[in-house]
Amino acid sequence: MSGITSNDIEKLTNALQQFRDERDWAQFHNPKDLALAISIEASELLELFLWKDAASADISKIREELADILAYVLLLAKVYDFNIADIVLEKIKKNAEKYPIDKAKGSSRKYNEL
Amino acid sequence: MSGITSNDIEKLTNALQQFRDERDWAQFHNPKDLALAISIEASELLELFLWKDAASADISKIREELADILAYVLLLAKVYDFNIADIVLEKIKKNAEKYPIDKAKGSSRKYNEL
Amino acid sequence: MSGITSNDIEKLTNALQQFRDERDWAQFHNPKDLALAISIEASELLELFLWKDAASADISKIREELADILAYVLLLAKVYDFNIADIVLEKIKKNAEKYPIDKAKGSSRKYNEL
Amino acid sequence: MSGITSNDIEKLTNALQQFRDERDWAQFHNPKDLALAISIEASELLELFLWKDAASADISKIREELADILAYVLLLAKVYDFNIADIVLEKIKKNAEKYPIDKAKGSSRKYNEL
Repeated sequence: MSGITSNDIEKLTNALQQFRDERDWAQFHNPKDLALAISIEASELLELFLWKDAASADISKIREELADILAYVLLLAKVYDFNIADIVLEKIKKNAEKYPIDKAKGSSRKYNEL
Repeated sequence: MSGITSNDIEKLTNALQQFRDERDWAQFHNPKDLALAISIEASELLELFLWKDAASADISKIREELADILAYVLLLAKVYDFNIADIVLEKIKKNAEKYPIDKAKGSSRKYNEL
Repeated sequence: MSGITSNDIEKLTNALQQFRDERDWAQFHNPKDLALAISIEASELLELFLWKDAASADISKIREELADILAYVLLLAKVYDFNIADIVLEKIKKNAEKYPIDKAKGSSRKYNEL
Repeated sequence: MSGITSNDIEKLTNALQQFRDERDWAQFHNPKDLALAISIEASELLELFLWKDAASADISKIREELADILAYVLLLAKVYDFNIADIVLEKIKKNAEKYPIDKAKGSSRKYNEL
């Protein structure tokens, strides 16, 4: 649907799978535990902002935690053979319906409160 | 470092920024709140696996929640001008040192317990 | 509403506040960051179950992480002067309406899917 | 260790167990899924603060989400027969060693960065 190929993302996913398989870790990577891993890594990212404002957060650690989240996202997406570009573009389209510009502009409200 | 260009990812990020800017939402997207958003979306993914095994989870919803997580990850990465391919490949390299194959193979332990 | 006094919980909350005030930490404990802290501690608890089944989790660590979550829950509840017993009993009552026994019995579905 | 009895908390836990058993939900409440539930509820609390400052958050919803977190915390603690007062007081004692007043006063740093 997108005209976007996913060569880059496929290469990243391949590198992650190779890392995993060299360690024989596929046995642990069922989708439920991958979802746990994403949530845990997202929380480690969040901790970098705890008790402080954004400007005080450690950027090199943000870099690493974002990479960890992405790694598990790509591995979970691969389980279901999702095309990353497709799923993001589909979601943008869907959100455009939930958040029409004229209602959502300048508002931080959820779609069900617009 | 990677020989991987990030054209695809840049196109996705551009689409996300356009969606955001049409709604004048950049004002809300400080890095701390983007980190909250990633964690909240990761938790919505997790909820799809609550009280059930992985095979019973709703794949079309997993697709959407993964897209939401990715969207905020790409937007936060953009704040710091991180190259997605670079940060993931760097992290793989770093993890290869924390988890050497001979010690980590077949084990689900954390690096500090190997 | 409950006939339950909260003396125990008040004593715990007082001990937590004393610990906090001796370190001059009230300045960091705004409600938003306390909510981050609860979520981060909940994720540390979750990590104890990652890649394994429940029986393999470390009980002494579960003990500590549950304590951390509770500590921040009590401190946040105190900000709003919530009575712990009251809010839990109110929620049980509300959930009893969302999950009537005849519909919910033996089902793990959310109330909006019953 | 505490001189604190936990009658109140026991009554709350009993009420939660009764609610659960009337719906035959104990079958879903293994410790791993209870940990997921705590994390998911903590994230719903967090969402009340997303894109806004603490003063703009909806207090009646904070009340409900805190109750949900507490409910699952009490149910998971019951699985291991933890005494809530004991585990919190033990953790305060342990944290007092990790965060000695003279080093930690006025600082938001983690114990390993003090």
